[in-house]
Amino acid sequence: MTVPPHGTRSSAPDTQQGIRRRNLSRVMHTVAAEGPRSRAAVASRIGLTRAAVSTLVDELIRAGLIEELGPERPGRVGRPGSALAVSAHGPAGLGAEIGVDHLAVHLVDLRGVDRARAEHKGSNRGRHPERVLADLNRLIGEVMAKARGLGLRPAGLAVAVPGLVARDTTTVVHAPNLDWQGHDLRPFLPGDLRLTVDNEANFGALAELWLGTDTPADFIHVSAEIGIGAAIVVDGHLLRGTRGFAGELGHVPVHPDGPACPCGGRGCLEQYAGEEAVLRAVGIASGPNAVPALTRRAASGELRTRAALRDAGTALGIALTGAVHLLDPQAIVLGGALSELAPWLVPALEAELGRRITSGERVVTVSALGSRGPVLGAAHSVVRAVLDDPTGLTLRS
Amino acid sequence: MTVPPHGTRSSAPDTQQGIRRRNLSRVMHTVAAEGPRSRAAVASRIGLTRAAVSTLVDELIRAGLIEELGPERPGRVGRPGSALAVSAHGPAGLGAEIGVDHLAVHLVDLRGVDRARAEHKGSNRGRHPERVLADLNRLIGEVMAKARGLGLRPAGLAVAVPGLVARDTTTVVHAPNLDWQGHDLRPFLPGDLRLTVDNEANFGALAELWLGTDTPADFIHVSAEIGIGAAIVVDGHLLRGTRGFAGELGHVPVHPDGPACPCGGRGCLEQYAGEEAVLRAVGIASGPNAVPALTRRAASGELRTRAALRDAGTALGIALTGAVHLLDPQAIVLGGALSELAPWLVPALEAELGRRITSGERVVTVSALGSRGPVLGAAHSVVRAVLDDPTGLTLRS
Repeated sequence: MTVPPHGTRSSAPDTQQGIRRRNLSRVMHTVAAEGPRSRAAVASRIGLTRAAVSTLVDELIRAGLIEELGPERPGRVGRPGSALAVSAHGPAGLGAEIGVDHLAVHLVDLRGVDRARAEHKGSNRGRHPERVLADLNRLIGEVMAKARGLGLRPAGLAVAVPGLVARDTTTVVHAPNLDWQGHDLRPFLPGDLRLTVDNEANFGALAELWLGTDTPADFIHVSAEIGIGAAIVVDGHLLRGTRGFAGELGHVPVHPDGPACPCGGRGCLEQYAGEEAVLRAVGIASGPNAVPALTRRAASGELRTRAALRDAGTALGIALTGAVHLLDPQAIVLGGALSELAPWLVPALEAELGRRITSGERVVTVSALGSRGPVLGAAHSVVRAVLDDPTGLTLRS
Repeated sequence: MTVPPHGTRSSAPDTQQGIRRRNLSRVMHTVAAEGPRSRAAVASRIGLTRAAVSTLVDELIRAGLIEELGPERPGRVGRPGSALAVSAHGPAGLGAEIGVDHLAVHLVDLRGVDRARAEHKGSNRGRHPERVLADLNRLIGEVMAKARGLGLRPAGLAVAVPGLVARDTTTVVHAPNLDWQGHDLRPFLPGDLRLTVDNEANFGALAELWLGTDTPADFIHVSAEIGIGAAIVVDGHLLRGTRGFAGELGHVPVHPDGPACPCGGRGCLEQYAGEEAVLRAVGIASGPNAVPALTRRAASGELRTRAALRDAGTALGIALTGAVHLLDPQAIVLGGALSELAPWLVPALEAELGRRITSGERVVTVSALGSRGPVLGAAHSVVRAVLDDPTGLTLRS
């Protein structure tokens, strides 16, 4: 019986090029995370010689990824070095979100600073991708024009969609609330940009991880627009699943003999806590103004709305009990539309978790990014790809 | 807004020592996985020069981790090289399992070949760890004596337990069926061996990953002795959870208003598919002979037993529907006692998954390792630790 090579970490050999790529990334991440720093400070932080770091930094400056701000303020020991900062010009992150009831485009520079955005309200239900993406392309065009004016050029485009995306592809396998099935978005988007398409819950979770305050490295991000999705972050990385379909919290059985769900199952969480279910219980029609209407009614103390949200929170608590037992996360973060309804959902959700899980503390937090999470996560994912592998751009320059 | 360094992979700098450690590991894994190979073949496989590989190999030979078998058989192109093989002597993996109704100890050499074992049947329910581990130490002594006779010395001891183990510790936080709570096992075990303690489902899953045929890199391993545990493998690595408690499938709610569970919850999977629940439905007492009795009755066609196992399979299917939606695994593997009862559990389990999940194919397989999975996984985990970081032993020599 021989031992197969399963599960070997870092199995790629340490070629000179691989080491250079990793070290360039370390310099970028250090300067990005710790603000203006001298070459010497970067060198001591990442454990390389000053000479090695200088070579890497020169390469990053030439590629326009790092800028020199001039001499560091005095008062430090040793010869003053020029402070390095991530560039405020050049490569930037372009993110887009296709929502059921809105479109959004967002631009951040390499420093992670928001630089431009555009938004469009209106239902996309049942519209063909070609039409929806024609609208999106107009917004992208607006933001690109602003980008040019700011001396920024997108290093890629990431698009968040309310549905399942096949792993490592640009194909939306199933977006029930848009009525899209098996549509590749690439042909409808600008051909000159490196394109990523992913589920909105995944991008929302990444935004939480990168931009949230005190976000732990292990959490479940629950997100809702019309459906209920979730993203699972383990050790600071998304758990995507074999096909890219992980995190389908909305179809976890809550009452296994409950009502039939369009997914083919029965008593799925969406049948109790999905927007349609809540709106039905409250007696208002779905549409772009549904969540604001729910929020208004709940805030004004309307009993039927509060009861419907309490029931939804209880159902979320039952489904999340299973998820917590399976994943043992450090926190549960509510994002998307759920974050706006949190004041009326969370008490019932927490009560249910508390009743069912007696060991350990369960931290339920509400995203401060709200419904902007997915588009922010998309834009920042482009920036992170540059920080993770700056050679993609240094080679091109 | 700066971009924090969350989620950066491989953030440790590429020091000479780190590179050497990784390259030694690559040589070990290549020789282990691909059988006797010349230095030249290993070099071409891992993308390093023949000279670099020779230096690494010499170091591994001096440490007793690799042996030279003499010249390779002729017929190949080029100068014949001496074939290298993982050593059949020296460092070995010692694994142990504390079961509710048995103890087992197992020794494998670095090649992954089984070399010695010892077993003891008898209930450990409610016995103090000191007594149980005194029995286990006797078995360990037996196997160590055999090891010495074979020219093998354990490079560490890994112990599988039927309960929750705090991550990266040797403390059993909660093993309900042993009635252990917060017991550190270290004081009761040989002090001269590097010690690992982990949940039996985790070691069972690792055994499946390393020793199973065609085991995918993403799967849920469901395991049962008295309780129902699971281990989640993602990209070839165990998902452990923040505290080390991930995989608690037994406490996923199946019918949220169902019977109270000792865990504090209601209607947990264990209330429907746990051994106690099945035995109660069949009307036989629990104990070391319960599963063989169930198997016999089911095999003979006894209707009450078959119905109880069918109901358990259905409950497993409901809980696993949630797990599949959350994790999108490639397969579900049944191990432990479940593997023996599989013929009567799996049809209902598969029917339930098929009814609830209409997209994609769900592969349910049964472990060929059966109840030996955890002790095998424990023993092999010690071997893998040597392959992953041979410097731990080369430095000592």
